[in-house]
Amino acid sequence: MISIEKYDIVVIGGGPGGYPAAIRSAQLGLRVAIIENRGRFGGECTLYGCVPTKALVRFSDTYWRTIKSDFVSGKENLSLNFAELMKKISEIVSRVSSGIEYLLKSYGVDIFFGRAELSEDKTVYVDRDRVLKTSKIIIATGTDPLIPEEFKLDKEHVLDNREIFSLRKAPSSIIIVGGGYVGVEFATILAKLGVDIHIVEMMPNILPGIDLDASKLVEKRLSSLGVKIYKNTVVKEIKRVNGEIEARLSDNRVVRGEKILVAVGRKPNIEGLGLERLGVEVSEKRFIKTNKYMQTSNPDIYASGDVAGPPLLAHKAFIQAIVSAENSSGGSVEYDKRFIPSIVFTDPEIAQVGYSVDEAKREGYEPASQRLFLGGVARAVIEDAETGFIKIVMDRSTRKILGGVIVSPYASELVSVLSIAVELGLRIDDLGKAVYPHPTMSEMFKEVIDFLDGRSFHYFIKKKS
Amino acid sequence: MISIEKYDIVVIGGGPGGYPAAIRSAQLGLRVAIIENRGRFGGECTLYGCVPTKALVRFSDTYWRTIKSDFVSGKENLSLNFAELMKKISEIVSRVSSGIEYLLKSYGVDIFFGRAELSEDKTVYVDRDRVLKTSKIIIATGTDPLIPEEFKLDKEHVLDNREIFSLRKAPSSIIIVGGGYVGVEFATILAKLGVDIHIVEMMPNILPGIDLDASKLVEKRLSSLGVKIYKNTVVKEIKRVNGEIEARLSDNRVVRGEKILVAVGRKPNIEGLGLERLGVEVSEKRFIKTNKYMQTSNPDIYASGDVAGPPLLAHKAFIQAIVSAENSSGGSVEYDKRFIPSIVFTDPEIAQVGYSVDEAKREGYEPASQRLFLGGVARAVIEDAETGFIKIVMDRSTRKILGGVIVSPYASELVSVLSIAVELGLRIDDLGKAVYPHPTMSEMFKEVIDFLDGRSFHYFIKKKS
Repeated sequence: MISIEKYDIVVIGGGPGGYPAAIRSAQLGLRVAIIENRGRFGGECTLYGCVPTKALVRFSDTYWRTIKSDFVSGKENLSLNFAELMKKISEIVSRVSSGIEYLLKSYGVDIFFGRAELSEDKTVYVDRDRVLKTSKIIIATGTDPLIPEEFKLDKEHVLDNREIFSLRKAPSSIIIVGGGYVGVEFATILAKLGVDIHIVEMMPNILPGIDLDASKLVEKRLSSLGVKIYKNTVVKEIKRVNGEIEARLSDNRVVRGEKILVAVGRKPNIEGLGLERLGVEVSEKRFIKTNKYMQTSNPDIYASGDVAGPPLLAHKAFIQAIVSAENSSGGSVEYDKRFIPSIVFTDPEIAQVGYSVDEAKREGYEPASQRLFLGGVARAVIEDAETGFIKIVMDRSTRKILGGVIVSPYASELVSVLSIAVELGLRIDDLGKAVYPHPTMSEMFKEVIDFLDGRSFHYFIKKKS
Repeated sequence: MISIEKYDIVVIGGGPGGYPAAIRSAQLGLRVAIIENRGRFGGECTLYGCVPTKALVRFSDTYWRTIKSDFVSGKENLSLNFAELMKKISEIVSRVSSGIEYLLKSYGVDIFFGRAELSEDKTVYVDRDRVLKTSKIIIATGTDPLIPEEFKLDKEHVLDNREIFSLRKAPSSIIIVGGGYVGVEFATILAKLGVDIHIVEMMPNILPGIDLDASKLVEKRLSSLGVKIYKNTVVKEIKRVNGEIEARLSDNRVVRGEKILVAVGRKPNIEGLGLERLGVEVSEKRFIKTNKYMQTSNPDIYASGDVAGPPLLAHKAFIQAIVSAENSSGGSVEYDKRFIPSIVFTDPEIAQVGYSVDEAKREGYEPASQRLFLGGVARAVIEDAETGFIKIVMDRSTRKILGGVIVSPYASELVSVLSIAVELGLRIDDLGKAVYPHPTMSEMFKEVIDFLDGRSFHYFIKKKS
């Protein structure tokens, strides 16, 4: 006989859209279960995304900077032990993942490992042998890599962003299909490890959705790392030739690689959940539809994270998880998606937040924009980052900061200054009141303000005659 | 016959207390001269301080991280080419320094290389062969390293923070006298390059003036790098023994080093200026006294930067330079020294700004403080920085942020979030409105807010029973 366990909330999925929802619900005094089908917590972000890729970004950069340093001798025998690198990555992932499991347990969340299936009367089955009855359900099942049919050749040569972490030997060459942030981050990492790289991107520029100046700068940097980039191009066909992958492109060129990484998109992970039985509507692209309270078309079911639609970002998932938890527990918190920063961990990093000039116009502002290259920032000279820039979008009359883009070392850390500014409606002059330590990249904030005021010390501004 | 040149403003000193004053004065439409006695611009900061040391911090860290990486093979023959490293540092310094000269020229500032001497009728002599008549003078002559008599043994073994950049070979061992930020930063750099290091500090802790928890954490880290630290200790005597320096400490222990770096303090650079002739008063420690307008006891003479007294920081000098320029041109701008961030570029970096708990109490606040270790920040796991922390000081009733300390990678960049908060009187809840990208160190801001509210996801907070 199967026993039935009763909960106030069942959360399906243990990634950033799920585990914070479970913890918050527990903090609110509810009886909570979380179901995870991978056997470990953290979801795409911890297991295959943010955490391992950023660790790789860091380690590959250290290795590459040593290799190219004039002041390091005896580099002839230096080589990267890829298996050891992957072991280290895997240890970091395990620590973050087991940390999440520890937290869930500490907060008294019941953990079920297995596949969840919903039934009409708010009953949730786990692997069809555990039965949970619940009042509310939060779905945070995330997304899977999307592999179009034409790439389903074999599992040995064709990789997605997960399988790349199973490699124990760096490929000598790789074709990356898709120049979005996943493809471009892996290109940056692998190029620094000495891999020969081809990126094929169907759009006119890599990193669609990212500031065009930033995209172009990173494209240039990738080229200088030896990465070959084919824009406005698609892969028509792939085949195995002499143990390698040969890809025929839309312009009939042929490129070869030991491996091929497919990073063209993601698909929501909703198969087999039984959403249809509970009247949970999905969009054309199969993301779960929600209102601003993260509530689905079934009022007892909430969704958060990737499965609730773009942007597919961990820090967005965290917020939606909390909104779902608060509202499913009787709260009334809105999810406001305006000011989610976008980061690309390239070299240099790209970070953007708030409105672009066009978006600001659409919102009824009269925006002014200023881009400043970083040559006047001493730290940029130290870091060889003078080609980077900061771009500020502000309202012309009030000088309120509406958005911005930073392309520089530590952009992912620095963007929070702009995030705070756009969230609180700060004026550019407000940022000018702080003292930015020398020599840091953060001095770019002071420099751009001085420049806007025509009173730069570290840039020459010709007097208007 | 000596020609006499006429100026509105003469700035003495081309460091961060001087060159921005000259540029701002020129921007205000005045005829400006700047006198620099080193033959190159940038002062202590650019030539021997901020710029070259932070470049060294960066490069030594890259080298050290490679050396200790499990995933790099063939390290047996790896060695640091110290002469090449110093060449690279020198190139960076030259670029920043010549950039300043270019800016001064572009803004129409007349440049005089030589020693300045003031005469009673606001006449300034350069090397006694050029004569400048001026209405106002801004003195920004900085400080020199202070070398107590007992260390004046020879120039070969006894180094100050400038002479260390003349080395073309790393010493195998070094005694560092003074555990302030100069000594501790050099210890971090040199330890990572494999130098055997003894730090002798007279106070009970290294980094006096810095948050004690931060100081202790960095002390621990230095010890793990093999640095020997002697606290509550002074060097009684040094002598040469077999080509090395032997130092007898106050507890009669003896330590030996190939070199000795004296970093016990700074002395204002006012010798030979002729301040006494113009009635410019100096303090007991010989710093030039100013009011809050940076005006000295002679109303036509202003002072800025190190020579005007502590804190001896470049970003403080910048601000005073501007205040001096504005006021000597007829403005009325106050220098407000409350919120100058202090940074130590150790591993991890330390950054603090605003009030400590004790300072906040003295200012009449009822402060609350929260320290949070970084184990719950995924990026800290990636960066091996879980022992770092953020400490927030806030007003208990209003929750306004009064100050804070960050000990973490990129602390020098992240502290600006706190600087903006203390300058604008933001509440801790205001910082909670921004979305901090994942995985970055900046998530510490969100974590500390959640922790204060008893609603953490990434830390376990036991329910109060």
